[in-house]
Amino acid sequence: MTLLDETLAALRPLDPEAVRAAQEHQARLTKPSGSLGELEAIAVQLAGLAGIDPPPLPEPAAVAVFAADHGVHAQGVTAWPQEVTAQMVGNFLAGGAVVNALAAQAGATVVVVDVGIASELGPAAGLRQHKVRPGTADMTVGPAMTRDEALAAIEVGIAVANDLVASGSRCLLTGDMGIANTTASAALIAAMLTTDAGQVTGRGTGIDDALLRHKVDVVRRALALHSPDPTDPVGVLSAVGGLEHAALVGFIVAAGALRVPVILDGVIAGSAALVAAALHPDALVACVAGHRSAEPGHARALAALRMRPLIDLDLRLGEGSGALLALPLVQAAVRVLRDVATFDSAGVTDKA
Amino acid sequence: MTLLDETLAALRPLDPEAVRAAQEHQARLTKPSGSLGELEAIAVQLAGLAGIDPPPLPEPAAVAVFAADHGVHAQGVTAWPQEVTAQMVGNFLAGGAVVNALAAQAGATVVVVDVGIASELGPAAGLRQHKVRPGTADMTVGPAMTRDEALAAIEVGIAVANDLVASGSRCLLTGDMGIANTTASAALIAAMLTTDAGQVTGRGTGIDDALLRHKVDVVRRALALHSPDPTDPVGVLSAVGGLEHAALVGFIVAAGALRVPVILDGVIAGSAALVAAALHPDALVACVAGHRSAEPGHARALAALRMRPLIDLDLRLGEGSGALLALPLVQAAVRVLRDVATFDSAGVTDKA
Repeated sequence: MTLLDETLAALRPLDPEAVRAAQEHQARLTKPSGSLGELEAIAVQLAGLAGIDPPPLPEPAAVAVFAADHGVHAQGVTAWPQEVTAQMVGNFLAGGAVVNALAAQAGATVVVVDVGIASELGPAAGLRQHKVRPGTADMTVGPAMTRDEALAAIEVGIAVANDLVASGSRCLLTGDMGIANTTASAALIAAMLTTDAGQVTGRGTGIDDALLRHKVDVVRRALALHSPDPTDPVGVLSAVGGLEHAALVGFIVAAGALRVPVILDGVIAGSAALVAAALHPDALVACVAGHRSAEPGHARALAALRMRPLIDLDLRLGEGSGALLALPLVQAAVRVLRDVATFDSAGVTDKA
Repeated sequence: MTLLDETLAALRPLDPEAVRAAQEHQARLTKPSGSLGELEAIAVQLAGLAGIDPPPLPEPAAVAVFAADHGVHAQGVTAWPQEVTAQMVGNFLAGGAVVNALAAQAGATVVVVDVGIASELGPAAGLRQHKVRPGTADMTVGPAMTRDEALAAIEVGIAVANDLVASGSRCLLTGDMGIANTTASAALIAAMLTTDAGQVTGRGTGIDDALLRHKVDVVRRALALHSPDPTDPVGVLSAVGGLEHAALVGFIVAAGALRVPVILDGVIAGSAALVAAALHPDALVACVAGHRSAEPGHARALAALRMRPLIDLDLRLGEGSGALLALPLVQAAVRVLRDVATFDSAGVTDKA
């Protein structure tokens, strides 16, 4: 039995008794019923995930930034040179990037995982070397990777999640770095939702109209070449995915198996979540949608998954930034269920 | 010269040089330009407010919960008994309410101000006694308060802000407690925007359709009785406002005069911000909209003020809860401008 098979076999739905207990508990808190909106749903979900009301606080938290390169970069889908992937990883390791600033603000740890950067990086503190291959192949010419490589990258994500939780993390956050990875995300979303590339391909880090038209055409050509089958999620990943997308699939399902919440960042994680959902009906049991990015495919993916994002501020950075901004909201949702007095205990009159 | 006049006289617009410096600085950070969306605008605003780039971190933070009762409660606009205002203040002081849990999560201090609770509260740690009158009068029968009382309540808010900043707070958050205060908020918004009550009156803590129709009628009758003039904001407050609304007007303008950011909570603060904006063109220079509540009047108020809320999760609790949830986002916006490396310093290639 592979690590992926073991992980999928450990998935269970939310615990219905803990869900019911949390709902009843929440209704007795000294606040109008329902007045914390979406946060109440998250508190109940996390109780069901932990199997106890109230659930533990989701801390300490760790964001795993899976970094990889993309063969489709050769098609000119972005204004950024490919070496920026490795340069930004250096920036993460030096503590100078947005993910570092936001993690410091939120009290989270940053781990960086090389799952497929094109160049060779030397050893560095905070860098986990799990390169499956030095970047994917160009999906417009052939499959981005083999099926075995996709499975290996998925298992990198599982292993990282397992290790973080074994080391004490009680909340996982998805992060990513990979120049051209919104192209692979758009292809994955179009394939999984059987939608035209034009509906789900966006401007990434900010390309102009002409480049966007070209990017849509690149995604369309890749889909035409592979005709990916959405009922074969590993096949879809192999054909048009990225190594960081595959790792995120593993990271997400492992969080579910570990019963530890995982906060999804933007469109890269959203496309990985679509793939994960096709692997197992309970694959997303631990997932909270951290934010909705400016990428049109992300809104489509979240809608298909019926997930409501916590943050919606036109972010389009990646790195885990949206997940880190959502972390205090998830912690607040649980904190309310843990710490707020009930009408009885506080001597407050409930409404008529 | 009154405290209000002094405070208004100290207001200035954002410092244009600091705004320009922050914009140029932000463009050099190691991230795609614009990729932090709304957070970038907040970082620039806070630089302009502080007059320096980067601005100081907005911490430590303090939420001031202004509590008062409402004579219009007699019209049966809510399912909650009036004594719940005082009971919830007791809950705040005992640390058992949502505002306490969220403040603990965000590292903020809670201060509770009695600006007009109907009953007498004994002295308690954390309670500031500044009662202007024991609740407003019923706005459907006569003015909610006199003009002098409205001015006194505004000056309570100014004094609280001045005191908090003198004690070291570097970020202020609005909070409120007052059974029936969404009725006064709706009346204020309808008056300031010259809109029908039906457009801006909501379900507050969760009333049913019949009670909502009645609440709209109550607001409409109050407006018909007073014909409030939106160019006389203190007159509008006196006619249909609440004592906590008046205090929040003072709190908001004082934050601007002190050049300390103030994060607005929900519809109560939103209606107060409309009144403040009519007092001085730079009254809202320090304001950040923390969230958009489920109340329809709040969306109208924010739109009129051209403010984009950071959190939009169907919250309708008050107490400062939405402002507290937004606090880490405001801190994150500044943290990025302070801590993230530039392309030059990090050796990262900017896009072509």
